[in-house]
Amino acid sequence: MTEAAFKNWQAVQDEVRRRIHARIWAPGEMIPNEQDLAEEFGCARATVNRALRNLSDAGLLERRRKAGTRVALHPVRKATLNIPMIRKEIEDRGQSYGYERLMYRDGVPPEELSRRMKARAGDRFVRVTSVQTADGAPFVFEDRWINLSTVPAAAAEGFETVSANEWLLTNAPYTEGDIGFFASNASDEVAGVLGCEPGAAIFVIDRVTWDNDRSITGVRQYFRPGYRMETSI
Amino acid sequence: MTEAAFKNWQAVQDEVRRRIHARIWAPGEMIPNEQDLAEEFGCARATVNRALRNLSDAGLLERRRKAGTRVALHPVRKATLNIPMIRKEIEDRGQSYGYERLMYRDGVPPEELSRRMKARAGDRFVRVTSVQTADGAPFVFEDRWINLSTVPAAAAEGFETVSANEWLLTNAPYTEGDIGFFASNASDEVAGVLGCEPGAAIFVIDRVTWDNDRSITGVRQYFRPGYRMETSI
Repeated sequence: MTEAAFKNWQAVQDEVRRRIHARIWAPGEMIPNEQDLAEEFGCARATVNRALRNLSDAGLLERRRKAGTRVALHPVRKATLNIPMIRKEIEDRGQSYGYERLMYRDGVPPEELSRRMKARAGDRFVRVTSVQTADGAPFVFEDRWINLSTVPAAAAEGFETVSANEWLLTNAPYTEGDIGFFASNASDEVAGVLGCEPGAAIFVIDRVTWDNDRSITGVRQYFRPGYRMETSI
Repeated sequence: MTEAAFKNWQAVQDEVRRRIHARIWAPGEMIPNEQDLAEEFGCARATVNRALRNLSDAGLLERRRKAGTRVALHPVRKATLNIPMIRKEIEDRGQSYGYERLMYRDGVPPEELSRRMKARAGDRFVRVTSVQTADGAPFVFEDRWINLSTVPAAAAEGFETVSANEWLLTNAPYTEGDIGFFASNASDEVAGVLGCEPGAAIFVIDRVTWDNDRSITGVRQYFRPGYRMETSI
């Protein structure tokens, strides 16, 4: 039994983290069960559970149903990325926002994208390209396919004044998606829209989203040269 | 009162999400308090709490202490990134891992990095550059500064056989850090190490970590052309 009782889950978390860092509990080692820790810490078992769950989310612990909890052998750091609406991201920088639709056309997505979207026979798609600007300068070029069979209301919305990014976030909240991040040399088309040299290194976000296994959209966003995505761990 | 009782937090979460998507609860609107929802759903208040906390973590709800819970007006999507040890990332692809130290030298970090690391007067640093390979091909070029005043054991470790990435993850677990992701055209040095053309678009991860406000390391990782960082939402 320790002297002091740990009144809240943050205090329990701090103590567990201290023991891991001090190697009192070594990498890969089982730690005591929640009931024993609750007794040692003089707190409720739910308090211990909350602390361990949080440390597990952060990658320091590995919790297995029935098998108990271990210190992670190879801590996988987890970082949370906020992916805001582009208009909000620009306005939060204190910059003025602009939007221009470049193209709106019915069509069939390239085969590789169709496969990733798990498109079904009979699905109808529209392709929308656009540029969003910050203080008048190009910020992001977006090349997007929308599944009209899943989001029929998008057929009535031409995206002439509101970006598909904003319209979909408020009108077709998605339930799951895959995101990829990579670097790409600007093609002539991307360079033309972003106003940079062809070949410039461009940060790209590639996203496919679904609602109950029905694809909503597949989109690639090309950010202006120098763009940085930031987070904390 | 609904007919069926919701027995677990996932079921409550599904129902809350359904109401948000169906706009039964509109963007920006307050939702009923936890006690009322628990009664309606025929479950414990803790079950409702767990479901709402999860939806808040996912960006669909905004919870304010005392003020209650609203449907997010501008849902900020949150994605969790796993940032594994590089060796593990390569081995998890089923590829053989290799490591080569390129340089190890005492020095003073560039001023911009010193500032971001919040370096203190008297701090001593070592710079280590290295390349890690997958199936014999360059995978990532790492350019790293380590604060020996915070991690004195690093002075005895030459990083000739173990990467600083792996050594620090197991010997100096950090408590917080800043991470940036961006695209950069390969310099002659980066191209030389990665075996690509100068100017190729390179995905870069830039990271600074601390333990209790004392900097541990500042590192830039340049990944081979074509590298993608993936996650789900």
